[in-house]
Amino acid sequence: MKDTFNVGAVQMRCSDDPKDNVKRALSLADRAAARGAEVICLPELFRTRYFCQKEDPALFDLAEPVPGPTTEAFRKLAKKRGVVIVVSLFEKRAPGLYHNTAVTIDADGSVRDVYRKMHIPDDPLFYEKYYFTPGDLGFRAAETKFAKTGTLVCWDQWYPEGARLTALRGAEVLFYPTAIGWHPLEKAQFGAHQADAWKTIQRSHAIANGVHVCAVNRVGHEGPKGCDPSKEGLEFWGGTFICDPYGVVLAEAGRAEEEVLVVACSRARQEDVRRNWPFLRDRRIDAFDGITKRWIEE
Amino acid sequence: MKDTFNVGAVQMRCSDDPKDNVKRALSLADRAAARGAEVICLPELFRTRYFCQKEDPALFDLAEPVPGPTTEAFRKLAKKRGVVIVVSLFEKRAPGLYHNTAVTIDADGSVRDVYRKMHIPDDPLFYEKYYFTPGDLGFRAAETKFAKTGTLVCWDQWYPEGARLTALRGAEVLFYPTAIGWHPLEKAQFGAHQADAWKTIQRSHAIANGVHVCAVNRVGHEGPKGCDPSKEGLEFWGGTFICDPYGVVLAEAGRAEEEVLVVACSRARQEDVRRNWPFLRDRRIDAFDGITKRWIEE
Repeated sequence: MKDTFNVGAVQMRCSDDPKDNVKRALSLADRAAARGAEVICLPELFRTRYFCQKEDPALFDLAEPVPGPTTEAFRKLAKKRGVVIVVSLFEKRAPGLYHNTAVTIDADGSVRDVYRKMHIPDDPLFYEKYYFTPGDLGFRAAETKFAKTGTLVCWDQWYPEGARLTALRGAEVLFYPTAIGWHPLEKAQFGAHQADAWKTIQRSHAIANGVHVCAVNRVGHEGPKGCDPSKEGLEFWGGTFICDPYGVVLAEAGRAEEEVLVVACSRARQEDVRRNWPFLRDRRIDAFDGITKRWIEE
Repeated sequence: MKDTFNVGAVQMRCSDDPKDNVKRALSLADRAAARGAEVICLPELFRTRYFCQKEDPALFDLAEPVPGPTTEAFRKLAKKRGVVIVVSLFEKRAPGLYHNTAVTIDADGSVRDVYRKMHIPDDPLFYEKYYFTPGDLGFRAAETKFAKTGTLVCWDQWYPEGARLTALRGAEVLFYPTAIGWHPLEKAQFGAHQADAWKTIQRSHAIANGVHVCAVNRVGHEGPKGCDPSKEGLEFWGGTFICDPYGVVLAEAGRAEEEVLVVACSRARQEDVRRNWPFLRDRRIDAFDGITKRWIEE
């Protein structure tokens, strides 16, 4: 096994046109592969606008099965380029049963693993509990051609337990396809702290577990047609980044433009970090039972 | 219950003279109280030099029982000033049985809680596994006069599980008395990243759990007598800080000097943060069983 694997992260804008989004996502992933990326991650639900800003039964029409058209399109690209691709999509599993799903496609074009978002948010303009049934496949790692990958999705990023369980399964890199943005009216007061907390918690997963982390967000404003972007909708804050097992940021995208990041992740670095700060050695697994409780009353 | 409680953090230097260290710790804690601090935390093992740089059976003589001289001295101060004090010390529990312990003394001078460091490091110049039996009291929160406090110690700070379990018991603030420093020969290459990882992981506990965090470190170089400080010993990096439940740093000390920080922590802020990013609502406690495993083989 060679020391490095190259991670590619695609930060993109998402239009009203799913076909156009898929086409551009394919093109950007292809560009990442051309730049040497071996394992490529796309943002959460990149095929569509972030439709969860409202609750509308018609929007379930945006879902698709797995396998389905989006996985088929990326299976072709993965096989053609010989790369691994992590594809987030709105999964229709059965009539009336939908998930927020990430499919890991291996370098031969086969579906290597499926992850269904475990933690589902529900906040003003992020009405995900309406659309997505919480995942029932648990936290997972996938043995792909280039690396053992772990994929979690957006809101999962706030939960150290998800990162830990994925790392304990041997993931060398954690992917977080994401769609997170500012409420325009909150941005001035809270925006910097929100984006900093988002970056900090994910860097902390790298540090706590000694793994690489790759967080991939979308960019651009999305809101009701004709709305005032300074008052309504969401401004997705980009900031896609890849950090090493020490939490050191290796590459980071800006806040507003489409970008492709490609970074070499080193297994020697992971070993070195874990050997020098051997956190996994000392976990008090005899004392962690309460983690499965909601709250601990005396 | 009033909205705020005032946290005081004492960053101090530790000399060869335990009596002098205790005297100065009392004086600095008194100064924190005079500035309005209601819950005061001292650094890890402040009564002595950081003796774990070598393994020497004679050094067990530095330990003391609980209650013992150090707790008695701080019980007097706590009662006199009407403040809560978190006191880290080297506990002799029985012949040949020692712990790295933090005692929470309530504002009436009584011992409110005892915590024994759960995660014990062992690395070059941090030979703690030689001295300290891992704690057997679990992760805890203490109902004190001014706040529900949770205390963990140094190496615990790298473990999200410890922070989570303490927060689930209702702690409003997590204290991390600490003794962490740079190897002089590593500082130039790794120093900035090490200190940043240390700050990041603790800020992440604040974010993940919606609690205040107060990390208290010592300052100064400590090494063998007559050694070259640019090559031997440890340079404790200070950087004591208090952050809010969003991970926003409210106060932070420098790298080399003794300092007393006093900061108001707001319960309204905690409620607001947890209400707006309701992470505790969505934890997948049905899927966290594997946290009690060392590693998860398929």
